[in-house]
Amino acid sequence: MVNNKMVHIRNAALEKQSDDHFHHLGITKNSADLRKMFGDIKFLCMGGSMKRLKNYAEIFAKELGISMSDNLSTTDRYSIYKTGQVLWVNHGIGMPSASIIIIELIKLLYYANAKDVVAIRMGTSGGIAIPPGTLVLTNGALNGELIDKYVQYIMGKKILRTSVFDAEVYHQLYNVAHQLQLPVQIGKTLSVNDFYEEQTRMDGAFCEYTEEEKFAFLNHLHKLGVRNVEMEALSFAALFNRGNIKVAVICVSLLDRLKNDQVLLGHNDLNEFEMRIFKQ
Amino acid sequence: MVNNKMVHIRNAALEKQSDDHFHHLGITKNSADLRKMFGDIKFLCMGGSMKRLKNYAEIFAKELGISMSDNLSTTDRYSIYKTGQVLWVNHGIGMPSASIIIIELIKLLYYANAKDVVAIRMGTSGGIAIPPGTLVLTNGALNGELIDKYVQYIMGKKILRTSVFDAEVYHQLYNVAHQLQLPVQIGKTLSVNDFYEEQTRMDGAFCEYTEEEKFAFLNHLHKLGVRNVEMEALSFAALFNRGNIKVAVICVSLLDRLKNDQVLLGHNDLNEFEMRIFKQ
Repeated sequence: MVNNKMVHIRNAALEKQSDDHFHHLGITKNSADLRKMFGDIKFLCMGGSMKRLKNYAEIFAKELGISMSDNLSTTDRYSIYKTGQVLWVNHGIGMPSASIIIIELIKLLYYANAKDVVAIRMGTSGGIAIPPGTLVLTNGALNGELIDKYVQYIMGKKILRTSVFDAEVYHQLYNVAHQLQLPVQIGKTLSVNDFYEEQTRMDGAFCEYTEEEKFAFLNHLHKLGVRNVEMEALSFAALFNRGNIKVAVICVSLLDRLKNDQVLLGHNDLNEFEMRIFKQ
Repeated sequence: MVNNKMVHIRNAALEKQSDDHFHHLGITKNSADLRKMFGDIKFLCMGGSMKRLKNYAEIFAKELGISMSDNLSTTDRYSIYKTGQVLWVNHGIGMPSASIIIIELIKLLYYANAKDVVAIRMGTSGGIAIPPGTLVLTNGALNGELIDKYVQYIMGKKILRTSVFDAEVYHQLYNVAHQLQLPVQIGKTLSVNDFYEEQTRMDGAFCEYTEEEKFAFLNHLHKLGVRNVEMEALSFAALFNRGNIKVAVICVSLLDRLKNDQVLLGHNDLNEFEMRIFKQ
């Protein structure tokens, strides 16, 4: 029987392959001793920006007095840094970009025999009725249709995937943030495929709704329990869940969408807000 | 009356804003003389990878003996290089990532009073029943439901957007490729949100279909006129079309999906194939 803490895959065809190429990492299964390199991993810390994730990894290694690997990806699409039992990986913008690296990480950790792994997305988001700088811990995510399912189209057929955010993990993170006196809330997250129209922003190239309709929609989201809007949480949870990896998503809100659409933070505030996700 | 060659936007709310922040470029409307900087732009050459697009820009500038700008984006999400009347911009992976930079480029070129602009995506793809290295010029794109529409969910409602690939432009590109004796075809493109399951690959972490079902699906795509599969063409056309910018998508096929799923090209072949998109 499979140890229920092990990373899972479900693909009989993989066993027939003599090697396995992780296309977007530039690594192959046989090119390295994956068990030795990644068998000890317990945390995947991820976010959109390559630069930010590298920055987090550097600070983490320095604070703990441990070493940090070089970038273990050989492509320019994604980067991976290892500090002890933690991998720091950027996922790019949007669910399709995130889905690729998530699938390749699940395979990597499966081959490495990793177990008891938690993936944490540390992202930026727009808030709803919360002050800029507030951290939101996701307890459920909705798609653009306002349904709590990640949608895939496989051979033309619509498939709905459940996404679960681990309550134990997000409550632990909540307590840490609270102790550090950082503003924090637990709430639902809207995960959409577009920064402008799907988020009812009025500062894109196209806008076919009125300000009244925009506020009515944002208030409707608030009533549904939604506290922030971003572009990855839903696929992040749905795919890692299938790999038997626990998931938490913590995002800092850069603005309150009930006040404005444009992110008007100065460089220092933005840096300070992005560090809040890391600090807790 | 609006000159019908000008870049268009459709958003009355923008006129009320005293400035406009291009969030993902780190530029604001008032921070630069956009007309002077971008008013002459006639071509947007785009692709997923930051490194590849920079490489293309460097070769282009050298071959024409013209100067190349520094990276005009101040964020690490996207990069922009200018060489004469051509901008070289990476769009990341997937339609959500591409949609953000497309919207910001349309606004940028609108403020710059640019006209008669053509956007060309120069990408990589999986081929269907064509040898690796073949260039595919897209004459229509299908989504995961096999419908030729780009889908947006605006305030919870499903909106379908038409995508048009400019026949004059892709025929011109076809003729150039033919003269250079590069293998080239005109055909439809499947644009999906996932590299593994939505492309019926059998080398992902999860695979719930048989090899027979996979080949049946790929053959069905071939009968529909589909010659390659990638992750951006549909939104690329649909959004630039709305901005009154002509669109062409040319992708090199890295493998024939009727033969295998894994990209097994060596570094030199990959470089040579990626240069084919550029050469023509």
